[in-house]
Amino acid sequence: MALLETGKYSQGSVPGSVNPDLANERQTASFSVEKLTAWLDGGAERTRLRRAVVDAIESDPVFSRENQYFQSQNERYEAAVRKAVHLQKKMHEMGWSEDGPEFKYIYRAVAGDVAFLLHRIFMRSISMLGSDEQVAKWIPLASQYQLIGSYAQTELGHGTYLQGLETTAVFDVTTQEFILNTPKISAMKWWPGDMGRSATHTVVFAQLYIHGKCYGIHPFIVQIRSLQDHSLCPGIIAGDIGPKMNFEHIDNGYLMLQSVRVPRENMLNKFCEVQPDGTYVRRGSQKINYFTMTSVRISLISGEAIPPLMKACTIAIRYSAVRRQSKLKPGEQEAKILDYQTQQEKLLPQLAAAYAFHFIDDYLQELFDRGYREIQRKNFDTLPELHALSSGFKALVTQYCTSGVEICLRACGGHGYSLLSGLPSLYTKIIASCIYEGENTVLLLQTARFLIKCFMAASTGQSVPPSVTYLAAAKPGKCPAKNKLDFLRPDIYTEAYQHAAVRLISSTAAKLQDLIQSGVKKHDAWNRCTVQLVQAAKVSKIYLLIWFFSL
Amino acid sequence: MALLETGKYSQGSVPGSVNPDLANERQTASFSVEKLTAWLDGGAERTRLRRAVVDAIESDPVFSRENQYFQSQNERYEAAVRKAVHLQKKMHEMGWSEDGPEFKYIYRAVAGDVAFLLHRIFMRSISMLGSDEQVAKWIPLASQYQLIGSYAQTELGHGTYLQGLETTAVFDVTTQEFILNTPKISAMKWWPGDMGRSATHTVVFAQLYIHGKCYGIHPFIVQIRSLQDHSLCPGIIAGDIGPKMNFEHIDNGYLMLQSVRVPRENMLNKFCEVQPDGTYVRRGSQKINYFTMTSVRISLISGEAIPPLMKACTIAIRYSAVRRQSKLKPGEQEAKILDYQTQQEKLLPQLAAAYAFHFIDDYLQELFDRGYREIQRKNFDTLPELHALSSGFKALVTQYCTSGVEICLRACGGHGYSLLSGLPSLYTKIIASCIYEGENTVLLLQTARFLIKCFMAASTGQSVPPSVTYLAAAKPGKCPAKNKLDFLRPDIYTEAYQHAAVRLISSTAAKLQDLIQSGVKKHDAWNRCTVQLVQAAKVSKIYLLIWFFSL
Repeated sequence: MALLETGKYSQGSVPGSVNPDLANERQTASFSVEKLTAWLDGGAERTRLRRAVVDAIESDPVFSRENQYFQSQNERYEAAVRKAVHLQKKMHEMGWSEDGPEFKYIYRAVAGDVAFLLHRIFMRSISMLGSDEQVAKWIPLASQYQLIGSYAQTELGHGTYLQGLETTAVFDVTTQEFILNTPKISAMKWWPGDMGRSATHTVVFAQLYIHGKCYGIHPFIVQIRSLQDHSLCPGIIAGDIGPKMNFEHIDNGYLMLQSVRVPRENMLNKFCEVQPDGTYVRRGSQKINYFTMTSVRISLISGEAIPPLMKACTIAIRYSAVRRQSKLKPGEQEAKILDYQTQQEKLLPQLAAAYAFHFIDDYLQELFDRGYREIQRKNFDTLPELHALSSGFKALVTQYCTSGVEICLRACGGHGYSLLSGLPSLYTKIIASCIYEGENTVLLLQTARFLIKCFMAASTGQSVPPSVTYLAAAKPGKCPAKNKLDFLRPDIYTEAYQHAAVRLISSTAAKLQDLIQSGVKKHDAWNRCTVQLVQAAKVSKIYLLIWFFSL
Repeated sequence: MALLETGKYSQGSVPGSVNPDLANERQTASFSVEKLTAWLDGGAERTRLRRAVVDAIESDPVFSRENQYFQSQNERYEAAVRKAVHLQKKMHEMGWSEDGPEFKYIYRAVAGDVAFLLHRIFMRSISMLGSDEQVAKWIPLASQYQLIGSYAQTELGHGTYLQGLETTAVFDVTTQEFILNTPKISAMKWWPGDMGRSATHTVVFAQLYIHGKCYGIHPFIVQIRSLQDHSLCPGIIAGDIGPKMNFEHIDNGYLMLQSVRVPRENMLNKFCEVQPDGTYVRRGSQKINYFTMTSVRISLISGEAIPPLMKACTIAIRYSAVRRQSKLKPGEQEAKILDYQTQQEKLLPQLAAAYAFHFIDDYLQELFDRGYREIQRKNFDTLPELHALSSGFKALVTQYCTSGVEICLRACGGHGYSLLSGLPSLYTKIIASCIYEGENTVLLLQTARFLIKCFMAASTGQSVPPSVTYLAAAKPGKCPAKNKLDFLRPDIYTEAYQHAAVRLISSTAAKLQDLIQSGVKKHDAWNRCTVQLVQAAKVSKIYLLIWFFSL
C-alpha cells in the first residue's frame, strides 16, 4: 500500500520502533513502494522535494500539533496565527514558492491548521476579478501581510442563492464612492474565515445600485479594521460567530456595514466597471463573478477532500494491521483485524477511491488551467462546462471522501473515537466540505441542469462540449457481461455507467417534458424531478471518473 | 408532525415568538397533534407527566445547557457532576422514581449530559449478577452515592473478544481473597465511564484462576479510590484517557491493578461461586455474564439512539420550514427549503424511521422483560434469541439513527455545522453508539451465527425460536407486485423482505457448506462469507421491523 508511504505521517517516528506486525506487512508488498510513491508524487524529484519540505515543517517546533487536542479554541486560534506568520518567513528563507508544489505539501503536513487561509482567497479573487491596476496595488500589500484579507459573500439568510444577497453598494456620483449597507439582520455577512478577529480588509459581495437601478452582485474591497490598532473601522460591526464542529483555529466571523464608504476604485473591475458618471460597462460574461468559486472548488478537491481520506485510510489500515482481536483459527493467536473479510470490505474500497481521486484531480486541474487561459483571452465558452464539471466533481468527491473517513473511523472501533487517533477531527472537518463552496445537492442540480441542456442540444443534432459527447453517442442494448468475472473488466463497467448516465438523463428529460406537456408549470416540473436529477448528475460524474481511467 | 410536539425542545421558548412560517405549518396539520403526542407517550396521562418532569428540569438553572458549547472539558465534567448530585436530590424531593418513566424523560431533557451514568451500570450489574446478600450490601450504598461505581470490562487491547481479556483474579485460599493484576499494557482497563476521576469502586471483569486453573471471565467489585480523600487506593493506577469526539462531560478512564486484594465475597456470585476451599460452583449458564450487556443494549436503543434522531429531525424540519432559499416560482418570494423535493427526500424518511423505531422499542423492551423473568426462574432457553435480537436491533437502529442525524445536519447547510444548531453534538455522540456495547459489524455477525444455526435446525424439521419461524415457512415464488403502487402495500414489502432475508440466509448457508465440502476449513469458510452474513443479518432485522408493524 504505497499510499501509506506517501507523506511523513506514514513513517514510524522513532527509527527501529516499528510494530513487528506492521513491518511484516511492509516487507511483503508485491511492488516497489518507492516506485509507486514517485508515481503518486509525479516523479522521484517531486518525492525528494516533498520529503524535504515535510521534514522541514515537521522538525520545526512552531508547527508542532502535539497538544492541539488539549488546547482551548483561543489557543488554537493563536497557534494558527503564529504558524501563518512563521510560515511566511520560512517560505521566504527556504525559497519555497506560493504557486509551486511546496505550499501543497506544507498545507497537507500542517493539516490546514494555519490561519489566514481566507487571506489567500482574498488575494485570489483580486487576481482573478481585479484590473491590472488593482492587482498591482493590492497583491503586494497582501502578500507581505501589510493587510489581512477575507472574503465576504455568504449572509446569515443567504448562501446558495447568490442573487438573493441583500447587502447593498450604492454608487454616489458626487463623491465617487460606493456606500455599503447591511439593510437587515438576514443580510449580515456570516461565516467568512479570518473575519472574526484577524482581517483588516475583505472583499464584500453586494448588490450594486447606480442611480436607483440594480446591476446585481459585485465585489468590493472594504477595510474593516484599523491598520494602526486593529480596532473596527467606523460603520463596521464584526466578530466571531461562535463554535463549530471543527475549525477551532479559524475565526469565522460576521460583518455588518452601516453606510461604509469606499472609493470607486475599490470595485473589482476586470470584467465590469462603473465610470465616473455612473455609466456601467461590462467586459465579458457576468458569470465570471462566479469564477472564483469554480477555482476554489477545484482546489478544495485536492486540498481539503482527498488528503483527509488518504490520512484516514493510512491510520485505519495501519491500525488494522496492528490490532488483533478474536481468533480466526481456533487455538491460534488472535488475528489481525485486517485479515477479517468485513474489515477488508470496509477499508480497501476507501483506499482504492483515494488513489482514483488522486489521479482524477490532476486531470481536473489541467482542465481548469486550460479553461482559465481561454477566459483570460476573453473566451467564456468553456465556463458552463467548467462550472458543471467542477460542481459535479466537488459534490461527488467530497461526499465520497466524507463517507470514507467515517468508515475508517468506525473501522477502528473505540480507539477511532478517541481524538488522539486523528480520525474524529478528519471527519468533523471534511464533512464541512460537503456544505461550503456550494452545498452538494445544489451543485449536483446545477450539474444536472447543464446535462439536461446538453442532452436536449445533442438530441437535436447540435454540438455539445467534449465532456458530454457521450450523451449523443449512447448505444442502446443489453449489458455485455456474461459472467461475474466480466465485472472486473473496466470496459464493461465503463459502458455500464455510460449507459446508466444516459438513461437517467434521458428518462428525466422525458419526464420533465411529459409533466410540462400535461400542464405542470416548468418550475414545478423541475422540482418534481430533482431527486432523479441529482441521481443522474452523480452517475454521470462516476462515469466520467471511470472513463478517465480507461484512457 | 407530532414528533415535533414531543418534548419541550419542540416548543417556542418565548410565548408568541413563534416564527410565522412555523406557526403556519403547525396550523395546517391534518391530524390532532395532541392526540398523536399522547399516543407516542403511551397515553394522555403520560404526556402530562412528561411535560411536568421536563418543565421542572428546564426551569431549574442547575440543568441549564446554555453555555455548554463555550465550556472547557473540565467545566463540562464539573457541571455534569453538579447535575448528577442535584438530580439525585431533586428526584427524591419530587418523588420521581428511578425505574419509572420519569428518569427516561429527565435523561432526554438533559440530553444525557449528566455524570455517573456508569454508576447506574455498576448498580445494574450488581442487581443482575450479584447474590441477594451482595445486592443488599452494595445497592443501598450506591443508590445513596456513598460510593460511586464504574464498570471495567474493555481493555486497551481487548474489546469485542471478551475471552481475550487479560486482567487476572487469582484466588488465594489462605487469605480467602482474590488478587487482581494487570499483567501488561494491553490488559489495562480502558474507556470505562466515571473511571477517570469520579469512581470509588468498579466492577472489574477478570480471568478467574483457582489453584492455577482458569475458569474464564468473572466480575469482581474492587475499590479504587479512598472514601475519605478520594486518593487512589494502594496498587491502583487510574486516570482520564483524554479527549474524545464527544462526551466531554464524562471522565472515561484507564485502570491498572497491581496485586490488588479483594475479599472472596466481592466476586458477583448469583450464577457462580468460589467456595472457601476453592471449589468452583456454577448455578446456570455461563452466558449469563453477558446478560448485563444484553440489557444495556436494549436500553441504549431507547436512551441513546432514538432520541438524537428525533431531536435532529425536529431541528432540521423546523429549520427547513423557516429557511427560505432560491425561488421555486419566478417572481415569487424565495421558497421554504422544505418545499424542495430533494429536501423532503432527505428529511421525511428520517422522520418516518424515528416513528418506527419509537414503536419497535416498546416491543423489544417487552420481549426483554419477558426473557428476564424466565432467567430469574433459571430458565436460560431464551438467552440466545434475546442476545441475537438485541444485537441485531442495536446494530440496525444505531446505524440508521447515526446516518439519519448526519443527513439532518447536512440538510441544514452551514447553519447545521454550527455547534449552536445542536446537530454536530447529536452526531458526534450518536456515532459512538455504533461502536460501544458491541461494535455493529461484530453484533451483526453474532446475529448471523444465530440465524444460520436456526436455519439449519429449521431445515431438518427441528423447532426454532418464535422470531425465526419464518425461516422454516418461507415460500418460493415471484414478487406479487404488479405495478409501482403495489409497493405502497405493507403486505407486499413485508413479504419481499421476508423473501430477501430467507434467501440471503439460505444462500450463505449453502455457500458455507460448499466451501467446507470443497475442503476449506470451517473458520476460513466462515470468514469468507462474513460480508454476506452481515447483509443477511441486517435484512432479517429490517424484515422483523416491518413485520412488527403489520401485526
